[in-house]
Amino acid sequence: MRAVVYKSPGHVEVSDVPEPHIVEATDAIVKVTHAGICGTDLHVVKGDFAGITPGAVVGHEFVGEVVEVGRAVHRIRLGDKVMSSDFTACGQCRWCDRAEHWQCTERAFFGTGTAFGPSLSGAQAEYVRVPFADQTLGQLPEQCAPEAALLMGDNLATGWVAIERASTQAGDFVVVIGGGAVGQLAALSAQVAGAGIVVLVEPNETRRAFATAQGSVAVHPDDAAALVRKLTDGDGAEVVVEAVGGNGPLDFAMSLARARGRVVSVGAHVAESWAFPVGRAFKDEMTLSFAIGDSIRLRRKLLRLITSGAFDPTVVVDARGRLADAPALYELLAKQQRLKAVMTP
Amino acid sequence: MRAVVYKSPGHVEVSDVPEPHIVEATDAIVKVTHAGICGTDLHVVKGDFAGITPGAVVGHEFVGEVVEVGRAVHRIRLGDKVMSSDFTACGQCRWCDRAEHWQCTERAFFGTGTAFGPSLSGAQAEYVRVPFADQTLGQLPEQCAPEAALLMGDNLATGWVAIERASTQAGDFVVVIGGGAVGQLAALSAQVAGAGIVVLVEPNETRRAFATAQGSVAVHPDDAAALVRKLTDGDGAEVVVEAVGGNGPLDFAMSLARARGRVVSVGAHVAESWAFPVGRAFKDEMTLSFAIGDSIRLRRKLLRLITSGAFDPTVVVDARGRLADAPALYELLAKQQRLKAVMTP
Amino acid sequence: MRAVVYKSPGHVEVSDVPEPHIVEATDAIVKVTHAGICGTDLHVVKGDFAGITPGAVVGHEFVGEVVEVGRAVHRIRLGDKVMSSDFTACGQCRWCDRAEHWQCTERAFFGTGTAFGPSLSGAQAEYVRVPFADQTLGQLPEQCAPEAALLMGDNLATGWVAIERASTQAGDFVVVIGGGAVGQLAALSAQVAGAGIVVLVEPNETRRAFATAQGSVAVHPDDAAALVRKLTDGDGAEVVVEAVGGNGPLDFAMSLARARGRVVSVGAHVAESWAFPVGRAFKDEMTLSFAIGDSIRLRRKLLRLITSGAFDPTVVVDARGRLADAPALYELLAKQQRLKAVMTP
Amino acid sequence: MRAVVYKSPGHVEVSDVPEPHIVEATDAIVKVTHAGICGTDLHVVKGDFAGITPGAVVGHEFVGEVVEVGRAVHRIRLGDKVMSSDFTACGQCRWCDRAEHWQCTERAFFGTGTAFGPSLSGAQAEYVRVPFADQTLGQLPEQCAPEAALLMGDNLATGWVAIERASTQAGDFVVVIGGGAVGQLAALSAQVAGAGIVVLVEPNETRRAFATAQGSVAVHPDDAAALVRKLTDGDGAEVVVEAVGGNGPLDFAMSLARARGRVVSVGAHVAESWAFPVGRAFKDEMTLSFAIGDSIRLRRKLLRLITSGAFDPTVVVDARGRLADAPALYELLAKQQRLKAVMTP
Repeated sequence: MRAVVYKSPGHVEVSDVPEPHIVEATDAIVKVTHAGICGTDLHVVKGDFAGITPGAVVGHEFVGEVVEVGRAVHRIRLGDKVMSSDFTACGQCRWCDRAEHWQCTERAFFGTGTAFGPSLSGAQAEYVRVPFADQTLGQLPEQCAPEAALLMGDNLATGWVAIERASTQAGDFVVVIGGGAVGQLAALSAQVAGAGIVVLVEPNETRRAFATAQGSVAVHPDDAAALVRKLTDGDGAEVVVEAVGGNGPLDFAMSLARARGRVVSVGAHVAESWAFPVGRAFKDEMTLSFAIGDSIRLRRKLLRLITSGAFDPTVVVDARGRLADAPALYELLAKQQRLKAVMTP
Repeated sequence: MRAVVYKSPGHVEVSDVPEPHIVEATDAIVKVTHAGICGTDLHVVKGDFAGITPGAVVGHEFVGEVVEVGRAVHRIRLGDKVMSSDFTACGQCRWCDRAEHWQCTERAFFGTGTAFGPSLSGAQAEYVRVPFADQTLGQLPEQCAPEAALLMGDNLATGWVAIERASTQAGDFVVVIGGGAVGQLAALSAQVAGAGIVVLVEPNETRRAFATAQGSVAVHPDDAAALVRKLTDGDGAEVVVEAVGGNGPLDFAMSLARARGRVVSVGAHVAESWAFPVGRAFKDEMTLSFAIGDSIRLRRKLLRLITSGAFDPTVVVDARGRLADAPALYELLAKQQRLKAVMTP
Repeated sequence: MRAVVYKSPGHVEVSDVPEPHIVEATDAIVKVTHAGICGTDLHVVKGDFAGITPGAVVGHEFVGEVVEVGRAVHRIRLGDKVMSSDFTACGQCRWCDRAEHWQCTERAFFGTGTAFGPSLSGAQAEYVRVPFADQTLGQLPEQCAPEAALLMGDNLATGWVAIERASTQAGDFVVVIGGGAVGQLAALSAQVAGAGIVVLVEPNETRRAFATAQGSVAVHPDDAAALVRKLTDGDGAEVVVEAVGGNGPLDFAMSLARARGRVVSVGAHVAESWAFPVGRAFKDEMTLSFAIGDSIRLRRKLLRLITSGAFDPTVVVDARGRLADAPALYELLAKQQRLKAVMTP
Repeated sequence: MRAVVYKSPGHVEVSDVPEPHIVEATDAIVKVTHAGICGTDLHVVKGDFAGITPGAVVGHEFVGEVVEVGRAVHRIRLGDKVMSSDFTACGQCRWCDRAEHWQCTERAFFGTGTAFGPSLSGAQAEYVRVPFADQTLGQLPEQCAPEAALLMGDNLATGWVAIERASTQAGDFVVVIGGGAVGQLAALSAQVAGAGIVVLVEPNETRRAFATAQGSVAVHPDDAAALVRKLTDGDGAEVVVEAVGGNGPLDFAMSLARARGRVVSVGAHVAESWAFPVGRAFKDEMTLSFAIGDSIRLRRKLLRLITSGAFDPTVVVDARGRLADAPALYELLAKQQRLKAVMTP
């Protein structure tokens, strides 16, 4: 089958690879109808993660149709239209029982090498093998656009969880740092959840324009501190979402939050250590959380928001193509000329 | 001064009455700049409530400017632009300490006779005396339209509290029974709070059209049960808001709620007893709450939603006039030809 | 095998019945090591429920050991020591997905005729067939006493859910109406959850003495209103749990709750209708909920409370015997001479 | 009057100082009947805080009787028995309105120099001046022991807020680092709030024995990691309370928390920066909060727990004396030979 594979640092190519087949009784094989390219994929392709070798199939956002199921798969059936989480969860361990699927002892993450668990072949391909299909996959109802379902598998779950973890209240002043797909979806999630003013901080002008068009107040990082001060009478934001990753953005996030503010980081962090402003955090009773989107837990809630028309996450999809277009689409995204790309076979 | 007074069952007139003056040290006198006519006023004027005699000044929704303060008033100052709660609260009793102001032992309700406490002259007048001014009044910031602040005093606080008391979750299916100002504001509150589909049930076609224009699914009561069943796969609504009052609407609300559903009544109830469907409520683990808007507690939260632009409640105001127009405005509202009227002096 | 069966109104006997066998692939057969007698069984045996015919095996509280599993059972394994919910849930429908197992479309209730779903043979027997074993059963860890696990299947889940549904806060004044096993466990749950004063209302002196010994304030129904008024400065209780069933106890519960109070009924209700005090409920913004214990959802939380030593529910077990003693034990319970009986084979 | 004053690093003495008098109209003068010595006082006396000069009156925990009130004091009256917060709050700013009193723009902290705001004379004296008396003071009801009320002003509010900020759930596994008065009260608060196992980590053997006697599992720091691993099947604690202060204890706290765990620090932090384990916090979705006890907000809740008998915080008081004994009591506490000292005049 055709698949997008890692070629060399910064480069993908589309090549022929063997079709996947059922390995465990809890597996399913899904014929991919839509595959997304995520910011994480850009890291994978740059070689930031361990365990990626030339020829490895990438990609972890997808929807499709079930074409084969293992004999221990019960909820998902042959022919089902399905959406998928970007990582797998067994559904039977103590973590899964508490709906803390990311900590599942059997976690594997599609197409990202060994960064987040044992290697699992990616989804930017004609077919993909899905472990623990009954949990990892969910039914895709007709009323939900495939692109919306695809976003639920990663970017939307991540944007939403930031707002949820911050216990965002009606009227809260929310700042989102980073205007990539996750940041934009966090800003939209904040609006849906009843936030008051939502400020999106982003250097890229096109991304700022997008955020403005979607109802947020967009600002360049250089002007963010002054703007937040002005709009909050000097107090700072109740909620700050860090959607970039790295220690610098964490410092920035802390600095924009008010006393008793809640900072939630959904960006990726590769450093082991960060110089945390403990003096200020103590005096100002701050809260800092790290959160990872859990599409399995959030699936039902997000689906209802989408199918009811209350939330349309597909507005962030601004690049579409075929699998064969992957190299070009990756380049557009790497140059930040597009927010989000979705490929059909 | 000029004021709207009760004349006879069904009729008000505008006449000269004495100006109010400070009685208690915690009083303030407010020059009214905007006064609303509420559905409750129609009940008052019909003679449904006790203690209303000809000549009594009516009205309980208002904003204005403080022109006199008692010597024990500290937070509110001369010249302040203010919004007001429709009832007074002392701010010092055990109920106020728990932000349960409606249960305040010193509660009085403007312009409604003795139905809700000791008689207190109404606000559809040039001036009004406000007991416990430090709690009953709040600062009206420049960024908040006077009509929005006026609505916070009653109709908006009531619509919002319904959604809050129901612990409405993102994506919840919400039904609102009744398309008067409170029902419409409850439907809008549900949208702001992240509800999924919001269905408004209302016989009046104009009101249905308004709800539709504002993003809800409007339906005639005769068609409501079938529609709710269809949109929820037969389950019923997670949240039902009863915004009409009376036992019939309560029965209707229970019937539209799903198992484990939450019914919140914000309509007024004059009956002592109601034949509650205990068999079904038991089997289906239902929850029923009665809630009364508390503008004092909700003031800060609602103000933030309004000043941030997340919520514009003034869309319900569709009739405006002067105090002198009161008789005509009352008639428009009584005939359900308008949703909400606001008068300037 | 030997089993306790319904004989005639008010009477059970122990007789030989056929052993159960696997019917569905999701079934398990459990060898019962401990079976409880519940207040609900007394209703069953009185003939209050439909679908109970002479020879029917009764009982729905049990723990035991898995001796056979259907081929679609995965989490539960042969030889497992298990506890069980008193009703079954499929684990795959939309209700189960939301952890609202009681509303599961496949619900059946052990040994209670057709009152709560399709007939399912009871557990006061040497063996019992358990549908949907992966959900209905839970592992019974060594650190948990079998009697504690048995109580989790019904009485404890019911007592706990009352306190949970009432959103009981630290320091809340809680009244429990009814000093049977459920009421006593509700009172203990309230203490564990940080309630302040817990008042248990009960006419039976022995039950009152038990409640007193366990740290509650016990009072005869005739004196309850005066006591609650006195202890709350006339306000009434924040939380009232109705653990008897019937309209009279509901009226009583409402009367003991304060304004803005929360009444939760976990008693059984056979009436269709109840004269609800709507006038007072409106004016006092009250909340009324009906709740049914969900041992499947609460299993993990209760297990942790028990194995940590924070909560020992077995204090309510005051009668023990063999299956052969069932007729005598039923009589002791019917006469309210004992709170709770547990039988071993 | 007699008062405990700072003499030189490590030393206090009891000497004559001028009596306080009303400065602002919102002040009250309280005749101190009980004054506590807090761990913070030991820091003050060591000279860790700025703005403490020889002769300064120390102490911030007290109860007493109101002997004079300013003319703008309304809730508190002459002759009232009162408890006090350890810091003052105006009750009128936007922070106070949100019950975030610690952030009040008018905050001052009794007897701690200028570390937490403008200097305010301490309470280990015969009389103390209390700014913003209506908020800073609360009525001390007869049913509440003066020592319990004294603890509510600081140590108990701090211990409780740790458990509250961690959103501790019934059955949670809670670790408290530090067995001083605050740590012990945090452990007791956890028990009251329904925690499962509570582990208290403390090197001092006497303190461990106290914790054990009060129902916690006490462990030496060297053995804590192994014990927590063993008791949680290797996962770590859901909640870790850091009640010592400093970067080392923060590292320790993070290391004992499980994935998705919540760490709350109520210790004092003087460092500006701390090497935060961002890599692990990201991967394990951790939450870290800093919290400061707010006796004003918590007063009502704690009072109910105490007066109902559900919580007796006075068990930590193990040293009592007169003001004249202050030097000896300070020494006992500095040597960790006692947990908590309370002085009467």
